[in-house]
Amino acid sequence: LAENDQLVLGIDLGGTKILTSVINPQGEMLSRDHSITPAAKGPEGVIQAILASSERALMGASIGLDGVSAVGVGAPGLADTEAGILYTSPNLPGWENVPLRDILQERFKKKAFLINDGNAAALGEYYFGAAKGISHFIYVTISTGIGGGIVVDGKILKGSRGLAGEVGHMTIADEGPLCHCGNRGCWEALASGTALAKAAQKRIETGAETAILSYAEGRIDKVTAQIVQTAAEKGDSIANELILKAAYYFGVGLANLVNIFNPEMIVIGGGLSNMGDRLLKPAYQVAEERAFNRSFRMVRFVRAALGRNSGVLGAAAFAFDEMKRAGRRRSAEATKKG
Amino acid sequence: LAENDQLVLGIDLGGTKILTSVINPQGEMLSRDHSITPAAKGPEGVIQAILASSERALMGASIGLDGVSAVGVGAPGLADTEAGILYTSPNLPGWENVPLRDILQERFKKKAFLINDGNAAALGEYYFGAAKGISHFIYVTISTGIGGGIVVDGKILKGSRGLAGEVGHMTIADEGPLCHCGNRGCWEALASGTALAKAAQKRIETGAETAILSYAEGRIDKVTAQIVQTAAEKGDSIANELILKAAYYFGVGLANLVNIFNPEMIVIGGGLSNMGDRLLKPAYQVAEERAFNRSFRMVRFVRAALGRNSGVLGAAAFAFDEMKRAGRRRSAEATKKG
Repeated sequence: LAENDQLVLGIDLGGTKILTSVINPQGEMLSRDHSITPAAKGPEGVIQAILASSERALMGASIGLDGVSAVGVGAPGLADTEAGILYTSPNLPGWENVPLRDILQERFKKKAFLINDGNAAALGEYYFGAAKGISHFIYVTISTGIGGGIVVDGKILKGSRGLAGEVGHMTIADEGPLCHCGNRGCWEALASGTALAKAAQKRIETGAETAILSYAEGRIDKVTAQIVQTAAEKGDSIANELILKAAYYFGVGLANLVNIFNPEMIVIGGGLSNMGDRLLKPAYQVAEERAFNRSFRMVRFVRAALGRNSGVLGAAAFAFDEMKRAGRRRSAEATKKG
Repeated sequence: LAENDQLVLGIDLGGTKILTSVINPQGEMLSRDHSITPAAKGPEGVIQAILASSERALMGASIGLDGVSAVGVGAPGLADTEAGILYTSPNLPGWENVPLRDILQERFKKKAFLINDGNAAALGEYYFGAAKGISHFIYVTISTGIGGGIVVDGKILKGSRGLAGEVGHMTIADEGPLCHCGNRGCWEALASGTALAKAAQKRIETGAETAILSYAEGRIDKVTAQIVQTAAEKGDSIANELILKAAYYFGVGLANLVNIFNPEMIVIGGGLSNMGDRLLKPAYQVAEERAFNRSFRMVRFVRAALGRNSGVLGAAAFAFDEMKRAGRRRSAEATKKG
């Protein structure tokens, strides 16, 4: 990925947490700082928190800013890799057209690179995780929402400006529920943790006989995907039914990815993937029923290997990658000028 | 694409027609033979027809087989580009796991290359048509079915074994009509010409007041997408309504492609694209409402430029491409050994 002695500062900006780390080309994290995203404070407050976390990560690795070659930042939402702008982010209120890359570049006086968080996580799994050596795969994260990143020929599929990979916002039920993105029946609106929690709340409101509420302090607003999982584990049949329905929708979307991409592998990460077989087995079954047989048989479904670190490791990998590309471009130009 | 004096025999095998042509690297067709696919005769009969058509194309260009460097064949269905096998083809009865590439290679004593027809058409438009110089685009053909090809970084997205690009078989309505592929609610099952014809037949059967039948010799089984179009042009309101519904579904699928791929361009080909604004304008509008604003604004929607020749030109381009790649591999190996 890079010269052995280079280091990069990786930043994983999430809607609820910021993770920063000093990372080497082998994917070793020399330090790791984890803090809360002060999302309500808007861009300036969040950027201050990023800077503070970065300082702690550098200190943790016993280096200064001069010890890193670049900064790689992964962020949720529509991240334009070319312009370095985060256009909009559903989980970061007030973020509209923020030139995050240039802001960080100026504060750090270091080359910085911006990438979407799902794409970052895909790169993380590609270089250091479950998809090492797999040239064609899709990373899907299923948690609050559904995100992802697509790797084609060993490179992240960026599309025109880095906005590709929004698999969570493909319509799988054209008349389905409204998604916060403005569309209807998105994969994310039907199969994510939020969708599962909403479906559970609805069932409870309509009087279903279920113990789910008892795991949520009796408060319907405290029902989460995690709570539904707990109820299912205790044998609650409504909870199990709800998870099966989410699994069904998750499988419908997986089948789409199989048919469109004929991938070698689909890597599943995110909080809900920890449900394991309860969610994933029925989802794979639905995908098998719906996708082309031939294409389905070529895919390996595997769980992500890097857990919460896939994003920060991928953001660092992206920075290494981009520096290398820039280096190659420079040397090609030098040869030309000769 | 290749040395200027090289020629390739391009073959576009369709469910209803075979098109063969001798093609140079500039995309000029030195000859063109068009014949009917004897689909009912099964693989052997169809292959005989391909050989006969190829001979006529070679004669038309006043050359023999020694005048071409290779053969490129585009075929409908699941075409494994690595193994050269056509696994299955909805429009070619009896074709199961046919090693079409090797069969042609043996009969012609020439290097042959097999590619899916939608992928071939995408390559055709990339090298010689509407998408010249566009590195990230999607070709979508809307006719009997919906097919396509995806170009990433100037190369066809093949996936694991060349089966990628089956955009017509992404689910957009999970409880929608059964598709011949076995899935439900595929894009193709809702927005293709076949889907439009079926929807019209259903409306007629349930007693809708429409003049559609009068354009189909009064026979419901003769109602096609073309007939619906004719009725719409004459002001039939049910026909117009049916086209608007197909356009709606077409737009839902386009939005998916915009969100997943962030393409620079979407090229629309196939018979139904000739409906023009009547179909495409409302479809683009639906796509705009459903896709991410930012991604939608980056896409140019354009009509295919090569008409019925996109497939055969693309099959030839694929052969040129693959030969070039093989040449590069050989010279790299020679350098290594050197």
